[in-house]
Amino acid sequence: MRLEVLNIDDLKKTLNLDDIGQEMYGLISKLYPICRSITGNGIRETLNIIKELVPVDIHEVPAGTRVFDWTVPKEWNIKDAYVLNSKGKKIIDFKKSNLHVLGYSVPIQKKVSLAELKEHLFTLPDQPECIPYRTSYYKETWGFCLSHNQFLSLEDDEYEVFIDSSLEEGYLTYGEYYLKGETEDEVLISCHCCHPSLCNDNLSGMALATFLAKFLSRFSLSYSYRFLFIPGSIGSITWLALNESKTNHIKHGLVVACVGDSGKSTYKKSRQGDAEIDKVVIHVLKHSGKDYEIMDFSPYGYDERQYCSPGFNLPVGCLMRTPHGCFPEYHTSADNLDFIKSEFLTDSFSKYLSVLNVLEANKKYLNTNPKCEPQLGKRGLYGAIGGQKINPFNQFAMLWVLNLSDGDHTLLDIAERSGLEFDLIRNAAELLLKHNLLKEHPE
Amino acid sequence: MRLEVLNIDDLKKTLNLDDIGQEMYGLISKLYPICRSITGNGIRETLNIIKELVPVDIHEVPAGTRVFDWTVPKEWNIKDAYVLNSKGKKIIDFKKSNLHVLGYSVPIQKKVSLAELKEHLFTLPDQPECIPYRTSYYKETWGFCLSHNQFLSLEDDEYEVFIDSSLEEGYLTYGEYYLKGETEDEVLISCHCCHPSLCNDNLSGMALATFLAKFLSRFSLSYSYRFLFIPGSIGSITWLALNESKTNHIKHGLVVACVGDSGKSTYKKSRQGDAEIDKVVIHVLKHSGKDYEIMDFSPYGYDERQYCSPGFNLPVGCLMRTPHGCFPEYHTSADNLDFIKSEFLTDSFSKYLSVLNVLEANKKYLNTNPKCEPQLGKRGLYGAIGGQKINPFNQFAMLWVLNLSDGDHTLLDIAERSGLEFDLIRNAAELLLKHNLLKEHPE
Amino acid sequence: MRLEVLNIDDLKKTLNLDDIGQEMYGLISKLYPICRSITGNGIRETLNIIKELVPVDIHEVPAGTRVFDWTVPKEWNIKDAYVLNSKGKKIIDFKKSNLHVLGYSVPIQKKVSLAELKEHLFTLPDQPECIPYRTSYYKETWGFCLSHNQFLSLEDDEYEVFIDSSLEEGYLTYGEYYLKGETEDEVLISCHCCHPSLCNDNLSGMALATFLAKFLSRFSLSYSYRFLFIPGSIGSITWLALNESKTNHIKHGLVVACVGDSGKSTYKKSRQGDAEIDKVVIHVLKHSGKDYEIMDFSPYGYDERQYCSPGFNLPVGCLMRTPHGCFPEYHTSADNLDFIKSEFLTDSFSKYLSVLNVLEANKKYLNTNPKCEPQLGKRGLYGAIGGQKINPFNQFAMLWVLNLSDGDHTLLDIAERSGLEFDLIRNAAELLLKHNLLKEHPE
Repeated sequence: MRLEVLNIDDLKKTLNLDDIGQEMYGLISKLYPICRSITGNGIRETLNIIKELVPVDIHEVPAGTRVFDWTVPKEWNIKDAYVLNSKGKKIIDFKKSNLHVLGYSVPIQKKVSLAELKEHLFTLPDQPECIPYRTSYYKETWGFCLSHNQFLSLEDDEYEVFIDSSLEEGYLTYGEYYLKGETEDEVLISCHCCHPSLCNDNLSGMALATFLAKFLSRFSLSYSYRFLFIPGSIGSITWLALNESKTNHIKHGLVVACVGDSGKSTYKKSRQGDAEIDKVVIHVLKHSGKDYEIMDFSPYGYDERQYCSPGFNLPVGCLMRTPHGCFPEYHTSADNLDFIKSEFLTDSFSKYLSVLNVLEANKKYLNTNPKCEPQLGKRGLYGAIGGQKINPFNQFAMLWVLNLSDGDHTLLDIAERSGLEFDLIRNAAELLLKHNLLKEHPE
Repeated sequence: MRLEVLNIDDLKKTLNLDDIGQEMYGLISKLYPICRSITGNGIRETLNIIKELVPVDIHEVPAGTRVFDWTVPKEWNIKDAYVLNSKGKKIIDFKKSNLHVLGYSVPIQKKVSLAELKEHLFTLPDQPECIPYRTSYYKETWGFCLSHNQFLSLEDDEYEVFIDSSLEEGYLTYGEYYLKGETEDEVLISCHCCHPSLCNDNLSGMALATFLAKFLSRFSLSYSYRFLFIPGSIGSITWLALNESKTNHIKHGLVVACVGDSGKSTYKKSRQGDAEIDKVVIHVLKHSGKDYEIMDFSPYGYDERQYCSPGFNLPVGCLMRTPHGCFPEYHTSADNLDFIKSEFLTDSFSKYLSVLNVLEANKKYLNTNPKCEPQLGKRGLYGAIGGQKINPFNQFAMLWVLNLSDGDHTLLDIAERSGLEFDLIRNAAELLLKHNLLKEHPE
Repeated sequence: MRLEVLNIDDLKKTLNLDDIGQEMYGLISKLYPICRSITGNGIRETLNIIKELVPVDIHEVPAGTRVFDWTVPKEWNIKDAYVLNSKGKKIIDFKKSNLHVLGYSVPIQKKVSLAELKEHLFTLPDQPECIPYRTSYYKETWGFCLSHNQFLSLEDDEYEVFIDSSLEEGYLTYGEYYLKGETEDEVLISCHCCHPSLCNDNLSGMALATFLAKFLSRFSLSYSYRFLFIPGSIGSITWLALNESKTNHIKHGLVVACVGDSGKSTYKKSRQGDAEIDKVVIHVLKHSGKDYEIMDFSPYGYDERQYCSPGFNLPVGCLMRTPHGCFPEYHTSADNLDFIKSEFLTDSFSKYLSVLNVLEANKKYLNTNPKCEPQLGKRGLYGAIGGQKINPFNQFAMLWVLNLSDGDHTLLDIAERSGLEFDLIRNAAELLLKHNLLKEHPE
């Protein structure tokens, strides 16, 4: 009976969620120093660390490969970078923070005046203590990022800029973990892993996807699961271009990002807007007992932009905490190990489990006795003494399941119409199945 | 012209609603002392009293008859019951209130300690002055119900319990009154009549159904009407099992219960949720000038549970005042003759009439002159002097009826879209029919 | 590229809207003194003045012509009318205000007592200083309208009433201006021109329609436009009866009335309720930055009553300011040249232009690159430096257009779903078309 395979109540007995939160935080701490970009050794090193936990396949796609309207870019690597003042002091040092270098900076070594240097500096005047995160993937240039305070203190001087990077033919690297279930129908879990030292966006997403994959791999599940660890935009475009024939198996999907901050859970709906994944996540958040936010789809954000492009229109939403661009630490050095907390990672992980719990169990059943109610009492499913005002809650759940198991309603539909939580409905369905008062619906 | 047959305005000329309220109250007073249950002589006696007002057919279904998943239970009758203390004083006496005995108690005569007695006593600690109503239809046992105050005063003593009841092969008894109309399409009015001395739940429903039947029988109506006076749950299950072939004639239905208390009118929608009966009742309540409540369907409550089981899914709602379980007197001795009032019975009766009024007249018509407005003025249907700001209200109604009589809208649809009350729209339709500006819509 | 033909932004460069407001006010001032009715020389004179601005065709339909359920009435003309007191003093004088005569009064000259006179007088007791506007098109009588204050001061006397009118075979006159566009699909703009000296209702509508026609005639447009200057009710009925075969070309329509007062813009939806014209006007008002009101359709008001009769059910709404009957000056002498203002005419005109702007450009396109996003950056359509929090607004618009240009969404649908204003979306679409990232949708 697959209903029992992935049951959040059973799961919670086998798991210490707090421990998992701390393990996720530990993984993030380990990955934090690595300088990732959309290609290069940073992402390779990252995937190899993840591979210690989950046997991800690491794919290498040659630069120059055409992927729809795009071309896989050259591979970028960097060893060191700094700016020296005339006294030879390193005033900007890549080794201290990999955010200091404009992503995809071409190699350079030259002396420049302050004026020329400034043309290559990026700061955040409104957040003068933070180093911004900036990239230039598709226009060859170089640059440094620094705090606005430091920028203001720069003196008229001759500087030496040095970037020991390479931009060469090579590969785009991504990780994929496919977990075969009972059916070929699959659930896609996708995270971007192209950002350097940024914790919430998106080391948190990578950690959550990793531990979700690790956890699920212990069970025999109904759906197959596909985890993608990909560079943002170009990674999902590449995967979709090279795996177009597989996309019709994707029945539900979630993009994981920004799952470690203290903000409330936020779900951005798929382009379809009323896909099963949308209903499931909204149900889970509604019954989470915590504040949450539902956003309509917009063609902006993470890789759901690609999964939900009109030529695919996959049912893929994005379950996060504070959305990208909505927290001031976003894309700055303040998105660091202090910004995220184990407890929020735990909470996000728990909600992802609840979502998968509903997806796995959300089936249709048929009432075997659809004319009038069956006599629950003679089966011990109903209180013997009649006339009492209040009946136990699961009797309501049983009556709802019986009343709506007509082939038109999934268990989630029943949960929604009754206002009861999914697990109550599912438990009632299991009990009724056991008493042959329900049967599986021939899809 | 059937429009004129059941017109609430005409009716109100022929009726003194207050008198009917008092007659309903009188019937309730007469039926109140009888000890009814789901079978037995109490229900027979009740139906015979009703038969003096309306020629109901009394059906007897043998115990043991299989009705879907259920079996008609043995017939239960009771003559007397009491508890004596060691001094021979009747401390609990069935003759004072038939609620004192647990419904379907098996016969017993024995001496018991206080401790043993207590295992068979039912009280309401939160309402210490009330005797609860309790039954044990499907588990053979015995018991007494009493106020919690009396329970607390019971002394350690030897008690004699005596229940002179019988639980034997016999019959389930129900009443049915079928009023043939122009068509075989029928309106079902169902009430449960299995409760002992409880006024609102559901002597009020029985009285309302009786007087509605009596009243309607004087008219030639479009719909046929079926009134069921049945024991709750097992009665509707039995009727549905034995009359399955008739159920496809049921086009609309209402379960009548709790129609005598001071609360606002409450309508619980059918499982379909947007059936014509749902729209009609909501329209009537909205225009009643009084507060009201609309509840979604739930598979809990009265016999709508059975009528709306998925194998039938009949368009049957429940029009009541305060819903079951929502008034503290529910299923206690406080649901007595003081709890209900003639004026509330009158108000409920009037709303039922209004509902039937709409149902009977809710037809579709066709504008015979659909291109542009017809010239109402030349037919005397429009003010002669133009340019005035305000036109009489029924001109609005006429224009709405003409505009929407396109074959897609019933008169109720027109009333709802215009915001006007049904009778205004219907009167306008009658006037337009008379001038051949409308014709009947060939269904 | 027809997108550029009628673009409100381009238009605003070619127009001084304030000047047009003043020209509209000037036209109203010129037409104000003329005594119009549903037939007669007043309407002819009016149409000839309009013809100086726009080459309207003037149609004459013989009295007695059957038009659906109606008959074109006799033509009414009036030269003079007054009431003399016994001293020969003109106490009511048509020459001072053409509202003084009941419209369609038959000729009369006779001496009458005060009592008899009063049977033919119309006043507004609640607005004692105003002369009401009254007519009697379909019942032959005569009468005078006057302020209630004057009415109260009338002394017992012998009066001479004189009305030099004629009611004879003749014609119903209306104006029509058809502007051929690229397609035969047409937009109907209809105003009533049967009211005498009343400014908001409806000289304002006639002026707006005139200047809209004049303005549009300078462009090559996608839709054809039909402007009707017709007497209210009988005029639209006559046009529909005589031009029934043309009505299937009408894809959108607006009735223009009451567009010069200080009230907020009000849109009364078409009978269909969700026609494209309804969505367009609501979008324009929502983004106008000003307060507005949306009313559901009702079969009452102006000529939308006829266009939206069930036999036609054309998508015709009514875009006005304060609706008929909702301002106290309505149908009184207070609806004069002081009641309307050039600035409000300008504002109304501007909104009509915005509506037509959307209608003309509201097409469907197809994303030529529907799988994943196209690479906007390589086409210079995207900021080169990634990672920044805020992207220019038109990038959002481009992404929305790309995401929803799937054949199911018009540009207005995209504007509505994105929450962006139509022009932003349309400009994005133009840019994408230019880069071959969109193509026209084969309808």
